[in-house]
Amino acid sequence: MSVITLTTDFGSGDYEAGVLKGVIWQIAPQTRIADISHDIPPHDILHGAVTLWRAAPFFPANTIHVAVVDPGVGTGRRALAGRLGQQFFVGPDNGLFTLEMERAEEKAWPAKWVCLDRPEYWLPSVSKVFHGRDVFAPVAAHLANGVPLEALGTVIDDPLRLLLPRTQETVSGWLAQVIQVDHFGNLETNFQLKNLGGKKVKSVTIHGVPIIGVVESFGSRLPGELIALFDSSDLLSISVVNGNAAQLLGAGTGDSLEIILE
Amino acid sequence: MSVITLTTDFGSGDYEAGVLKGVIWQIAPQTRIADISHDIPPHDILHGAVTLWRAAPFFPANTIHVAVVDPGVGTGRRALAGRLGQQFFVGPDNGLFTLEMERAEEKAWPAKWVCLDRPEYWLPSVSKVFHGRDVFAPVAAHLANGVPLEALGTVIDDPLRLLLPRTQETVSGWLAQVIQVDHFGNLETNFQLKNLGGKKVKSVTIHGVPIIGVVESFGSRLPGELIALFDSSDLLSISVVNGNAAQLLGAGTGDSLEIILE
Amino acid sequence: MSVITLTTDFGSGDYEAGVLKGVIWQIAPQTRIADISHDIPPHDILHGAVTLWRAAPFFPANTIHVAVVDPGVGTGRRALAGRLGQQFFVGPDNGLFTLEMERAEEKAWPAKWVCLDRPEYWLPSVSKVFHGRDVFAPVAAHLANGVPLEALGTVIDDPLRLLLPRTQETVSGWLAQVIQVDHFGNLETNFQLKNLGGKKVKSVTIHGVPIIGVVESFGSRLPGELIALFDSSDLLSISVVNGNAAQLLGAGTGDSLEIILE
Repeated sequence: MSVITLTTDFGSGDYEAGVLKGVIWQIAPQTRIADISHDIPPHDILHGAVTLWRAAPFFPANTIHVAVVDPGVGTGRRALAGRLGQQFFVGPDNGLFTLEMERAEEKAWPAKWVCLDRPEYWLPSVSKVFHGRDVFAPVAAHLANGVPLEALGTVIDDPLRLLLPRTQETVSGWLAQVIQVDHFGNLETNFQLKNLGGKKVKSVTIHGVPIIGVVESFGSRLPGELIALFDSSDLLSISVVNGNAAQLLGAGTGDSLEIILE
Repeated sequence: MSVITLTTDFGSGDYEAGVLKGVIWQIAPQTRIADISHDIPPHDILHGAVTLWRAAPFFPANTIHVAVVDPGVGTGRRALAGRLGQQFFVGPDNGLFTLEMERAEEKAWPAKWVCLDRPEYWLPSVSKVFHGRDVFAPVAAHLANGVPLEALGTVIDDPLRLLLPRTQETVSGWLAQVIQVDHFGNLETNFQLKNLGGKKVKSVTIHGVPIIGVVESFGSRLPGELIALFDSSDLLSISVVNGNAAQLLGAGTGDSLEIILE
Repeated sequence: MSVITLTTDFGSGDYEAGVLKGVIWQIAPQTRIADISHDIPPHDILHGAVTLWRAAPFFPANTIHVAVVDPGVGTGRRALAGRLGQQFFVGPDNGLFTLEMERAEEKAWPAKWVCLDRPEYWLPSVSKVFHGRDVFAPVAAHLANGVPLEALGTVIDDPLRLLLPRTQETVSGWLAQVIQVDHFGNLETNFQLKNLGGKKVKSVTIHGVPIIGVVESFGSRLPGELIALFDSSDLLSISVVNGNAAQLLGAGTGDSLEIILE
């Protein structure tokens, strides 16, 4: 009884998110399905990549992650399925799995990707605009049924990668970027806890506003206060206690911040 | 192990969508449940009908589709359950299943409807304002348990139908209407691929803006370009590549468009 | 095969709601999971409490309800699991279960709470900002696996309770408050059907606007009319037929209304 997860930019209001489950259960009726998110901002591949990267490690071995943020659907872009360590990933070849690949390399996990080119594992009729339904969901269901990865397509070694916004070391610390704004208005950045290398944060400056130090939890400060903390994925996050940092600062994805170390 | 799907205008933020699952699992614990959408615009029966029509064919045989867009709840409007071909439908008798009935007729599927009038298959106490919880979810669960359709109520042959916006043939092509705006701002119309009868689209005009030809996929044009294409349900759709056609054109449901054929 | 429900303010757009399912299925793979809502307004404990109170009675015996509206995460606030009657509740000790406790007392159900202090039932690494993932989901999964409540922590008898907005009897009837605004813009109040004690409502006044009598269903009046009715949880609700009462009246949570009895 496998688990399949779904991460898309389809929204949950139309029929697209729901129909994936019908397709999966036609092929693999025993599968348990978890929605990670269907509200990735439309066409925002980086946002989808970060969301999946946060969620995947908490799913069981053999989980199959279907991710579809796919502005290039119906063009020449390849379709992928891969195994990284003990999990599977299925979706378009447009960089959506970049962070998964980097994690696998860092952890020295075995990795294998195939280009999906065996239509016998797709729906009989394939639309030019909805490969989530017609290609990725059926392929995931066949994986759940035990079809080997290699049967689904030709092995490749060059899946596309995003050019990720990178942190940059400075004389006094680091420059980093906001990579996501979450539901609470927290500004999540690409600065990871491990970048500290044992040092401590003296201050963080964003939009000209300095924040002194890093707190451990939201409750460490009073409601309304601007804070910096390492979030549940060990990413530096700028927040307002019981409030909305994105609104308060007028800040969003792509904005820079400066981290000064002690 | 049956599948039950849910299509409602309850929103997913309140307790209504979730409670349906509790009711179903009390009666039929093995059921797998798929949310198709809980974000049908409030009271918009046509929108619910189109959403269900798009999703249903991709679900397994014996799937039970519960649909609740029900402004007449608690009045004299009848409650329905029906079998069309190999699937079941449960919900209010207000036209929500019109497109399913038309599909069944087109495909010459067997069809049977009952008016739900056997309270022994409902919750013991029935609210005047929430038949989704008290009537439709329990009836669906009993169907999933194998209770025959005919046991749930009296057979009827006159379920209500919506007066659907129809396409209209002209000297040079067709007049059609926008019937839904999706999450991406795509304008979905009631003009179906099969209306072409082998001809080709020369142009589509909406809000005075002409679009030349029909493309096969979003990636066929540059970001920002206005395009016409046949969507994943073979409906003509007006879109902006990586953008939002509804916003760009200020267009919405009910708006007309003209299709000129070659 | 247990049922676990999820009620949170995480939103469904980020990774938090989905990741809970991964954690649960790692520990208790057979569990069925129902989302009640992930759209509780951020940090609104009362809203979460009301939502859970409406949904819980419709779930099967032994259902485990995980609720996380948790502005105090990572501070000294305790973490709880409890059994009330035949169901279980897991979440922060901040009043989120107040209405469940009151219901249990009213029905004279057995009640037992433990303070979660046995890290062997949590994830190996516990973040200071996401106990939903690291503490509550794993504890719920262990309950689903049959671990006894008492094994999860130290029994306590003083879980925190919210100071609830209370109805107040007057010479001619009652004063009540709006406690929630739902997806349709209905104003749900804390005045319960049972408060009537057999009497009838003569009128309800809110924001200076009087509404005569109480109707049984939305269809009892014409579209656009302002009505009062008892909703699916037997709470007095102010609504506009096929419309939005919150918008029409400019009313919201915390607003007062006066109920005059015959």
